[in-house]
Amino acid sequence: MIVGTVAFDAIETPFGKTDKVIGGAATYIGLAASQFNADSTIVSIVGGDFPKEDLKMMQDKGMNLSGLEIVEDGKSFFWSGKYHNDMNTRETLITDLNVLADFVPKVPENYRNAEVVMLGNLHPNVQMSVVEQMRNPKLIVLDTMNFWMDNAWEDLMKVIAKIDVITINDEEARQLSGEYSLVKAAKKIMGYGPRVVVIKKGEHGALLFDRDDVFFAPALPLREVFDPTGAGDTFAGGFVGYLSRTQDYSFENMKNAVIQGSVLASFCVEKFGTERMLNLEKREIRQRLHQFKSLTHFEIKLT
Amino acid sequence: MIVGTVAFDAIETPFGKTDKVIGGAATYIGLAASQFNADSTIVSIVGGDFPKEDLKMMQDKGMNLSGLEIVEDGKSFFWSGKYHNDMNTRETLITDLNVLADFVPKVPENYRNAEVVMLGNLHPNVQMSVVEQMRNPKLIVLDTMNFWMDNAWEDLMKVIAKIDVITINDEEARQLSGEYSLVKAAKKIMGYGPRVVVIKKGEHGALLFDRDDVFFAPALPLREVFDPTGAGDTFAGGFVGYLSRTQDYSFENMKNAVIQGSVLASFCVEKFGTERMLNLEKREIRQRLHQFKSLTHFEIKLT
Repeated sequence: MIVGTVAFDAIETPFGKTDKVIGGAATYIGLAASQFNADSTIVSIVGGDFPKEDLKMMQDKGMNLSGLEIVEDGKSFFWSGKYHNDMNTRETLITDLNVLADFVPKVPENYRNAEVVMLGNLHPNVQMSVVEQMRNPKLIVLDTMNFWMDNAWEDLMKVIAKIDVITINDEEARQLSGEYSLVKAAKKIMGYGPRVVVIKKGEHGALLFDRDDVFFAPALPLREVFDPTGAGDTFAGGFVGYLSRTQDYSFENMKNAVIQGSVLASFCVEKFGTERMLNLEKREIRQRLHQFKSLTHFEIKLT
Repeated sequence: MIVGTVAFDAIETPFGKTDKVIGGAATYIGLAASQFNADSTIVSIVGGDFPKEDLKMMQDKGMNLSGLEIVEDGKSFFWSGKYHNDMNTRETLITDLNVLADFVPKVPENYRNAEVVMLGNLHPNVQMSVVEQMRNPKLIVLDTMNFWMDNAWEDLMKVIAKIDVITINDEEARQLSGEYSLVKAAKKIMGYGPRVVVIKKGEHGALLFDRDDVFFAPALPLREVFDPTGAGDTFAGGFVGYLSRTQDYSFENMKNAVIQGSVLASFCVEKFGTERMLNLEKREIRQRLHQFKSLTHFEIKLT
């Protein structure tokens, strides 16, 4: 069960720019999760301007769209952003909420029993509404961002109290906890509710914490990072997709899920928008899993 | 064979400040390397103001000081710096070269046959003079910094052409290569001479490249980073100390050396200056090696 935006993006990076292309958190999450052939549904909203062939593409990838509301006389959410030379910082140029302004998520009846729930970045009240519609989920994963910390702190804390795993970037972890050390930040955030904290550090990899343990997955060193848009959502989609598929929600298996998310994110940034994710073969993913193993594996004899 | 500064530092961090404490690249490198009980010598220069008990401490740790010149009426090199709140950036407040201004390194006769040579950060001409005094080293490792790229580019390129491994931080790798991507930067730097490039990313770990392969070692996530001074030199000292001890200079074994360097650096930053390194037990190192393994090890079945 994936809730999040399905949207248009216009992206500018030092390597070029796009017109409106399809994007949105749920789109990236769904594309990544689809690699694991898990039965998934997207709860979201678009306008009549959203191309029918892109909706068909999502269905062809195995996403159930019965929870995707189409407002025929409305316009889809639109985001436009520009990346600076280092690709680590970006500027939002345009945010047109459009139909998203009145989004009331409706989880399809036959998905209220879903085991895994992925709450993509949205207003915390929308995320909470989805949580309340679920019957007995085994794992709820929440993604959020600094905007909601600045503008909807109390609502955010309420939904954070209801979830199992939170994924945020390092700056957001610091803001959410008031701690500079990511180790301390993770501990403090666990105190708000989640039993697991995933801290995404972009090109510097990702950290996975629970009360007793910590795991680190590097980002694959790439010759070129073409467009970071959607990398965090792709990471989250790989994480939940792998967990859904394996139905093992232990910390040990979450390590594997973080690696799967990192592998998929390493493809996402190679081309503009969703382009690389739409043309990604199992063989390529398998090869890159081997690269991740080789990147991190060492043989010191431990005594 | 270690060449580098033996010096006084005065350090200010958000957690406190020190008066003059002993420091210098060769001091940190030597302390780290001493953990591997390799026969080591320090080639350096100090003034008559350098405490005899600190020289004795270095000898007690197994460092041969026959190549350490003491200028009785001179003053030791002094560096003073202040770290900003994020601990990733620092400001140099004072650099008094003192006796270092006229340093002419003399490698003791019985160390000219050393297999492993560590060139700590110094003027490239001083590093080159040491290279020329060695008979047939199997591995030369060079550390340098942006200051020499700005002020002694041609001399730096000459010594880089003569070495096997270069250790630099990410910004320096970018400056040295003119490439933003660290993968491209490493390839280009290999074209200058070294067969292996180690890129230190501080709290974000370290990357090890050769022509065909790449390895990544994370930094251990720490609750507190108290003082980053000497962490890079400690990393390099662990790297060369382990390689000297094992006498295996393959890329596979360099992966282990990078982990050993990262483990030692994770201790170095826990207290001011050399304090933690002076009181470090084999048992603690062993324990942290286990933590590194647990931090990076995952069990996805690869097909």
